[in-house]
Amino acid sequence: MASETTGQNPQTASEVGEFGIIATIIKGLGRPPAVSVGPGDDAAVFLVNGSAVTSTDMLVEGVEFRRDWSSAAEVGRKSVAVNVADLEAMGAKPVAMVIGFGIPADLPAEWVREFAKGVRAEADLAGIALVGGDITEADKVTIGVTVIGETAGLDPVLRNGAEPGEIVAVCGRLGWAAAGLAALERGFRSPRAAVDAQRVPSVPYGAGRMAARAGATAMLDVSDGLLADLNHIAQASGVWIDLDSGAFEIPEPVAVVAAAVNKDPLDFVLTGGEDHALAACFPPGELPEGFTAVGVVHAPGQDGPGVTVDGRPHEGHGGWEHFQHGQ
Amino acid sequence: MASETTGQNPQTASEVGEFGIIATIIKGLGRPPAVSVGPGDDAAVFLVNGSAVTSTDMLVEGVEFRRDWSSAAEVGRKSVAVNVADLEAMGAKPVAMVIGFGIPADLPAEWVREFAKGVRAEADLAGIALVGGDITEADKVTIGVTVIGETAGLDPVLRNGAEPGEIVAVCGRLGWAAAGLAALERGFRSPRAAVDAQRVPSVPYGAGRMAARAGATAMLDVSDGLLADLNHIAQASGVWIDLDSGAFEIPEPVAVVAAAVNKDPLDFVLTGGEDHALAACFPPGELPEGFTAVGVVHAPGQDGPGVTVDGRPHEGHGGWEHFQHGQ
Repeated sequence: MASETTGQNPQTASEVGEFGIIATIIKGLGRPPAVSVGPGDDAAVFLVNGSAVTSTDMLVEGVEFRRDWSSAAEVGRKSVAVNVADLEAMGAKPVAMVIGFGIPADLPAEWVREFAKGVRAEADLAGIALVGGDITEADKVTIGVTVIGETAGLDPVLRNGAEPGEIVAVCGRLGWAAAGLAALERGFRSPRAAVDAQRVPSVPYGAGRMAARAGATAMLDVSDGLLADLNHIAQASGVWIDLDSGAFEIPEPVAVVAAAVNKDPLDFVLTGGEDHALAACFPPGELPEGFTAVGVVHAPGQDGPGVTVDGRPHEGHGGWEHFQHGQ
Repeated sequence: MASETTGQNPQTASEVGEFGIIATIIKGLGRPPAVSVGPGDDAAVFLVNGSAVTSTDMLVEGVEFRRDWSSAAEVGRKSVAVNVADLEAMGAKPVAMVIGFGIPADLPAEWVREFAKGVRAEADLAGIALVGGDITEADKVTIGVTVIGETAGLDPVLRNGAEPGEIVAVCGRLGWAAAGLAALERGFRSPRAAVDAQRVPSVPYGAGRMAARAGATAMLDVSDGLLADLNHIAQASGVWIDLDSGAFEIPEPVAVVAAAVNKDPLDFVLTGGEDHALAACFPPGELPEGFTAVGVVHAPGQDGPGVTVDGRPHEGHGGWEHFQHGQ
């Protein structure tokens, strides 16, 4: 008789089979009223209030996550979180998601079960329904998540609406995931809060919607680093964004890692990616709950649109581009 | 100076970089009126008429396609086709799609360009707009496509609505892709029509919508083989489906391969997957254009719901399940 204890179950994905894996993932899945057809047919069917908003992310083992660094549940949670963050960044309301799942034949079935638990836990947090998916074989665990949200009465918040005189504000964590990665890369598993943040970002669910309601003119989620991502808003809006270094609180886990690796903690905050905080521009006035003012939007100076810190260009790494690691 | 000729361009994905690859893919992309935000922001935004209908597929090099068997453009076309077929199978109207794209650093940039051309050509055929995507690194080319359609005034056609007394009909090719695969596996590149069908399915775009309008009660696209897929309808609807072997025309390329490999050509037609024909049940009466009657729906017999051919169970392979190749 197979043991039910984690790690003692000898079954692999190959032994469980495609249909067994699907059953594992959709077992006990709730179906919100908006979803009329869930998993099991050729496609899922659900209501969208207003326009549909969609984004997709692909996560590959060894690139976006490592199985020796993150548990299966953490990978499942992260897969959902990074994607829903894109809906938040549009001010949209999450509705439905689908997952494409490429798995090695020898992947432990227990890993799939825990991954599915993580997906469902984060989907519940984010308020999004898993409505379908596809399973295939791959040498490395490969996860393709697509989320679909709805505008539901609010205009989507793009990147090109920032105007001089507005306030730049952030909601969520900055620098935590990058500090966690720096710790993991040096073989440490602590500070735990930073390492956990690298494994699963704490997306401020609902904050994007609040920002849209409060009149945000431009918004995005910080995936590549605050400076690099705000530069997208600066370029798209044709503005100069100047950040106030004194406006950033240095989180304690970030300070601990920075001291250990002899780095300025502000560098983690300004250039660290993967936390999926929200950064937005607002007309002057009261900011929505959870947002902190960190800078000001100006008309572009003689160097054109861009981002500065305390009026000066920030030195060092400005973001992440795949295939360009060495540059 | 870099040559523009296919195959002589030395650039790799790594050299072109993530943003260069994205530029290649979205270059010259049209934006239909329903799409208000296309690629380049955190998410795409588009109108959905009625309910949204969504499906996702993941295609991995070496599993769903081989780069030595299929050109990049063919892989691009297939990625779109297999997915839109799921919308057709619901009677939905295609609207928008997103692509997750995992690529090896040494993949020729030319492959990406040709792949993008194939994606766009098939998307145009299918009447669907590419609105966004994500690029990452992977050891093997990995493609995650998600399509979103709309019900636009017609109820979606599920698998569970078939009733005794109805007609079973098919639209599109059956057996072609399997015959092509059998040829390729033996090292042949002909008959060309069968081999091409394996590389890119000829999905009968628009036929699913016509079937829904004509009152189809159950429908799906044939991805695993007609018998295996009709069994999904039989089980979901609680009916017995009996096919008439005399109703199937044997396509010439299938006959040629069957003779060469000493196999009954009807086996290719009844059990071959990957052609993405549509199979549907209709109330007695006139069938929509392009559909051919191939069987009848009965109340389940003593063996319960299932599929027979000329009143008898069909012997042999009944479909495809990942990870169960040897069974």
